[in-house]
Amino acid sequence: MHTIDTVSRDPGRHRVLTGDRPTGPLHLGHYFGTLQNRVRLQSLGVELLLVVPDYQVLTDRDVADRPAEHAENLVLDYLAAGVDPDRAVVFTHSAVPALNQLLLPFLSLVSVAELGRNPTVKDEIAHSRRSGVSGLMFTYPVHQAADILFCKADLVPVGQDQLPHLELTRTIARRFNERYGTRVFPEPEALLSAAPLLLGTDGDKMSKSRGNAIPLGATADETARLLRGAKTDTDRHITYDPDRRPEVSSLVLLAALCQDRAPEEVAEEIGHGGAARLKQTVTEAVNEHFRPLRARRAELAGDRGHLRRILRDGNERANAIADTTLAEVRAVMGMV
Amino acid sequence: MHTIDTVSRDPGRHRVLTGDRPTGPLHLGHYFGTLQNRVRLQSLGVELLLVVPDYQVLTDRDVADRPAEHAENLVLDYLAAGVDPDRAVVFTHSAVPALNQLLLPFLSLVSVAELGRNPTVKDEIAHSRRSGVSGLMFTYPVHQAADILFCKADLVPVGQDQLPHLELTRTIARRFNERYGTRVFPEPEALLSAAPLLLGTDGDKMSKSRGNAIPLGATADETARLLRGAKTDTDRHITYDPDRRPEVSSLVLLAALCQDRAPEEVAEEIGHGGAARLKQTVTEAVNEHFRPLRARRAELAGDRGHLRRILRDGNERANAIADTTLAEVRAVMGMV
Repeated sequence: MHTIDTVSRDPGRHRVLTGDRPTGPLHLGHYFGTLQNRVRLQSLGVELLLVVPDYQVLTDRDVADRPAEHAENLVLDYLAAGVDPDRAVVFTHSAVPALNQLLLPFLSLVSVAELGRNPTVKDEIAHSRRSGVSGLMFTYPVHQAADILFCKADLVPVGQDQLPHLELTRTIARRFNERYGTRVFPEPEALLSAAPLLLGTDGDKMSKSRGNAIPLGATADETARLLRGAKTDTDRHITYDPDRRPEVSSLVLLAALCQDRAPEEVAEEIGHGGAARLKQTVTEAVNEHFRPLRARRAELAGDRGHLRRILRDGNERANAIADTTLAEVRAVMGMV
Repeated sequence: MHTIDTVSRDPGRHRVLTGDRPTGPLHLGHYFGTLQNRVRLQSLGVELLLVVPDYQVLTDRDVADRPAEHAENLVLDYLAAGVDPDRAVVFTHSAVPALNQLLLPFLSLVSVAELGRNPTVKDEIAHSRRSGVSGLMFTYPVHQAADILFCKADLVPVGQDQLPHLELTRTIARRFNERYGTRVFPEPEALLSAAPLLLGTDGDKMSKSRGNAIPLGATADETARLLRGAKTDTDRHITYDPDRRPEVSSLVLLAALCQDRAPEEVAEEIGHGGAARLKQTVTEAVNEHFRPLRARRAELAGDRGHLRRILRDGNERANAIADTTLAEVRAVMGMV
């Protein structure tokens, strides 16, 4: 297992694969949970591949709603946050057929029983809007393995609760290498990142699809309006106590993250100011911290052609990587 | 449902997808069961796509044994039998990534329950050398759907017992069209062909992998040797009675097919000549009928580069077709 600290000791030898589903704009939770870390990795010189997994949207709904438009907006959020498209490869999953073909040899390496008890499948089912389990959802961990292994990524950012999700990818890499007697794939390791838990304005986990998020690209006014509607509690004395006061503490944490301070310090400063003062503090902190990012974002948003070119270029680079890997796979399988 | 007769009334509008697993040389059972029909379809002007499904080999064994070499030999058998590579597209499954990518959207259209009760999966399991069911075998009917639908084939040759195997492909085509509100795929129909049941020299069904077959490319001497070892019975009076005398009747049938006569007539001619006379008759009939095919085959076998070029060309043409279909699929799914 790795952390940003262990990676920073020898960043050049790492390649990281991660990404975001094209289902809506990224929000502050994404920023402090993953985006910021990606930009840190990039600064360390780690190779970054960002997949927009459009097929994955179909694991929990019948049709994907404007996935191409959402993909462009993801590129916009990435660039605004500091992802450098000349260094990172940003690509759309469905645009890389050779990556997807890896699904076939990989499916030969796992049993139906293993798929049935996979934690990723169980998670997908738990979060699903469907009643039944589709073949796509059932085989999802194998798609995930293809996404990670096509570029021979050796590190995959995960939260503590997602550690088991990487196991099947490691198993597939190991079995492939064993069965064909040559080390084609690395066994990727987890890059553990401690994502702060930011709640949405309704007190639930902040989420793209729950309508409770503050988008990265919100204006200062929108941010103020959304935060005014945020759930708090009736105790006017503001404290940082995530267990007993989750909503208030999440707001305190958000201000603290924006100001790079300890949440306890922020809470103490607000003291008996109550929810109104808390919300005002958070709003100012968010708007201040994200001003440069939002300015960049607004500028980039005016040129959709540029966003599309970045995706097209990323798709080309991802296809070149995938073609090379698939050729190697077919060769060791005796298929060429 | 179609037969060669119904197709012959309007051959130009049909496209047929069929193929053979690259696990060994084709034999006389293939010739009279499927190859001859393909050449007939070709003569009628039907478009023919012949897939060499190399990944399918992995549904019932761990690794594929020299699939590329077997694929070349399949091309050799096809050409010798009269398949015209300028008209038919002969391609290797694993060489067409865009075809394989169709697996992902198609998997979203079927449930795990449907896959579990699919007759193709049950058949694959029944014929499998494995103990467990792999993800590749479990999803096999969806790969089959991708193989058929990537080229929008409207006809698929099947035997009477395989009629249910086409159902999931038809279901996937229908559901895709319904879900995305446009008729991208035809619902392919069965092309029923009455394949004569030829037994192998051991009395079991003639099979590539049972070592009981007379290969299409066997020499006259090899043919004589193999037929001398064929199982018969002790009744010296030769009759055509498939139910009660399957081995003898299969030999009679083979001679009859080669001579384009009724099996009863062949049997009567041999009369009380016994197994020796029967085998001699069959050997002469086979060697006579296959002499031109075998001469062509021997000539073609000398130029492996030519066979490889035909596959390369077929793969290119199949990729062009698959790229077009995948682009259409991604467009209607909103992924472009």
